[in-house]
Order: sequence, then structure tokens, then C-alpha cells
Amino acid sequence: MAQKTVTGCMIIIGNEILSGRTQDTNLAHLAGVLNELGVRMAEARVIPDIEAVIVATLNECRAKFDYVFTTGGIGPTHDDITAACIARAFNVELIYHPDIVEVIKRRQAPPDVMDSRLLMARVPEGATLIDNPTGGPQGFQIGNVFVMAGVPAVMQAMASTLDQTRIQGGLPVRSRTIGAFLGESTVAAALSAIQDQHPDVDVGSYPFYRADGYGTNLVVRGTDELELEAIKEKLRLMIVSFGAEAFEPVR
Amino acid sequence: MAQKTVTGCMIIIGNEILSGRTQDTNLAHLAGVLNELGVRMAEARVIPDIEAVIVATLNECRAKFDYVFTTGGIGPTHDDITAACIARAFNVELIYHPDIVEVIKRRQAPPDVMDSRLLMARVPEGATLIDNPTGGPQGFQIGNVFVMAGVPAVMQAMASTLDQTRIQGGLPVRSRTIGAFLGESTVAAALSAIQDQHPDVDVGSYPFYRADGYGTNLVVRGTDELELEAIKEKLRLMIVSFGAEAFEPVR
Repeated sequence: MAQKTVTGCMIIIGNEILSGRTQDTNLAHLAGVLNELGVRMAEARVIPDIEAVIVATLNECRAKFDYVFTTGGIGPTHDDITAACIARAFNVELIYHPDIVEVIKRRQAPPDVMDSRLLMARVPEGATLIDNPTGGPQGFQIGNVFVMAGVPAVMQAMASTLDQTRIQGGLPVRSRTIGAFLGESTVAAALSAIQDQHPDVDVGSYPFYRADGYGTNLVVRGTDELELEAIKEKLRLMIVSFGAEAFEPVR
Repeated sequence: MAQKTVTGCMIIIGNEILSGRTQDTNLAHLAGVLNELGVRMAEARVIPDIEAVIVATLNECRAKFDYVFTTGGIGPTHDDITAACIARAFNVELIYHPDIVEVIKRRQAPPDVMDSRLLMARVPEGATLIDNPTGGPQGFQIGNVFVMAGVPAVMQAMASTLDQTRIQGGLPVRSRTIGAFLGESTVAAALSAIQDQHPDVDVGSYPFYRADGYGTNLVVRGTDELELEAIKEKLRLMIVSFGAEAFEPVR
């Protein structure tokens, strides 16, 4: 039962996320993908396009977590410095990968535009590629670090190719959710008691506000489906004991 | 001209964000609020509801950045441990703040429910309060750390009360955006030259994909409005030189 938790850390690289111009959606998506592979997202960091910050964050996180996933900064412009920073963090050369060069050269372009596009073929020496089902340039893996695009459609395509041949996870985390028109404070004490009875699951409560009233969604997360079902039934009985009706989750 | 950049760091506390169940929107909102106060969001971290992680992250970030802002974990349930963790990080007692107790007691409740609700009145000793215009329990400030709710409507209400009496920022960052149906690789070299001519602004390029074609939005960010206008004109001329039309931004 006591299996090691395999941890993942996401590094979101980009001034546009930090400035609020762009809303990140990659974290939520990748968390779901990793969960299916048995990797628990343990931390995420959003950092600017600054070499020293990227290198330091990467070296800290790749030592601290089992797997690290970056998004952003692998395009063809001057602020796309992720590949160069990762080469520096691993202290290896930055090379043009022939398989990415081949993909890029399939589409013709004037020489100076092609030169810019070929910047996307640069990877740290020793990296292996992450397929890009959209047909664009690939991402790459070096050590326990996976480097992907920031554009959500491209990132999701790359993430869809990650599998157990390169990521050795534990058991996927499953969840059960049940909701009620009860305030968090009403259920707090009873909920805490249920959490104490089941230390190996996470019991969370998330308030919601709707036109027809406010209430709370209760979420239990763990790796044992039978235990989750049993706890969901406890939560249902608790809700009923407060004179409310238990229903399927409200987002 | 060479004014010190005032930096902010956001710590998003909550398993529900890391698991992908809930999409954070507070980072983008707070970045905008801070910018108006002259504080540049320099980093954001998303961390789980684990005491050791919260305390360590808080102590690291409050030493590293001018201001730190946390969201999440200040509700009434067992997984709401933010206030206790911040007291521990500052090595002070956790107390019941009389002004929050008063707000909470305005709404009647059975004794056990009231006990749970009063957990939201706990703050580290020495903290000052952050008003909550929604009428619920307040947030708090201790040192350079500002502690706010995770529910977006409440967080936004609290953030709206932050002003220059408690946050001493620099100049707000302004931006200009211009778009074109040109690939990033087409503009990459010219864009890099413009960035080199203006080292004190950030020039960014963000590809977009629409039914009527793909293109790039060019964003220039800095504190000098006249310089930004001049650069926008350079970008417009650059776009025209590639035979394309410059237009207002596409999201």
C-alpha cells in the first residue's frame, strides 16, 4: 500500500503569463495528463524570460522533484531562450537537432525567415525529442526535464505523446466529489473528523456561489477506489445529517 | 530614469489548483492590480496545502521579493492552514483578531458552526487587516506579506483595497500591442534588432491562430509612454515593410 509518491513540477516560462496578458491553462491540463501517468503535480512556478532565473529555477526543481515540465520560450524570436537556458543548466552544448531541422525544412521560406525558424531546432546535446502531433517542431527531454511549447494546442499535442516508456509513475489519483447547499463552516468539524479517519486521502472543501444559493463541494482524492467510494458515502450521510440534500458536483 | 524595479511574488496555495480541478484566475488579476501600483510580478508559485512547503516557500519568497501575496487556505476547514503557517514562518503567535471576530459574529449560527467560522478570525500576532468589501472575514498583512482569499470574487474585492499607503511601488508598466498576419519567424530578426535598440523595454511576440489565418501580436512593455509610442510606430513600419497590414491586437 505504502507506495512512493512520484512528483512532478511545472515551470511556466513567460513574461506574458506574469504580466497578466495571457491566462495560463497549461497547468490544469498537464496536471490531468500527469495524474493518469501516476505523477502528482507537487508545485508549479511561473517565471520571467530571464536567463539567470530560468537556469536557477530549473536546477533547483530538477533536483527536488522526480520530473520537471517546462512550457514556453521555444519559439523563433529573441525572447525564446528556454533551450539555451536548459543547455546551460545541464552544462552541455546547444546543437541543431537533425530531426527537427528536417521537420522545419519541409515548409519552404526565404533564407532569413528559414534562419529564424531553424532556431526552433536547437536542443541541448543529448536531448531526445518529444513528438509534436500538430506537425510543427518537436519538444525535447533531457534527464528528468521535459520541454514543451507554450501555445496550449501545441503543448497539449506534445503532452499527449508522453507515456510510461519515459515516465515511471505510481498509482493515478482518483477523486469523488459530492456537493450540498451547506456552508463550509457547517461541515467543517465533521469533515475534519473524516479526514482524520483517512490520513492517506485528501479531503478538500470548495465553496461555490450560484444564483440559487451558496454551498460547498466536497472532494476526496486518493489512489484506492473502494476507499474513495466508502468515504463518499460517509460524506453523503454527513450531508443528510445536516438536513441537506447531497448532489453531484457543481462547478 | 533608472528607477529600482519593485518586485512582487504571488504564492497560490491549494491542492485544487495543482490537481487541475480548479483553474487559477487570480494571478492574471493581481498582476494587473500590482502593475497599477508600480509593482512588477516577478514570480508566482503554486504550492500544496502542506505546512512545511508553505512555511519554506513563504520564508524564501519574502526575503527575495519586495512584496509577497498569497491566495487560498484562509477558510474555516481543516485544510485551511495558511494563517497558521504564516504565523510559524514569522515565528509569532496565532491570535483571534477582534475586528474579524466582530464581522463573523454579525451573522448568527449554532455554536459549533460559529466555532468553525471563527477559525477565519485567526491571524499572526502583529498583522494588520486587509478590508473585504464583500462583507466577509478580512485578509491580513504582516511584514511584506499580504494574505488574501482564494475565491476569485473575494480575492478581487480584497485586492481592490490595496493602495499606496501600504505598497510603495515604482512606475506602472504600460504596453502597446500591434498585430499582423505574419509568422513569428518572418519578423524575428527585425524584432530582435528593435529590442536591441531599446534595452529598457520588453518586446514580446505571441503567435495566434484564427479561422482567417495565423499571425503574431507584438507587445512592447515599459514605463515611458512616449518611447512605447515610438516603438509601436517602428513595429508598424516593420510590418508594412513585409507587405502586411498592421492592426490592433487579436486575442
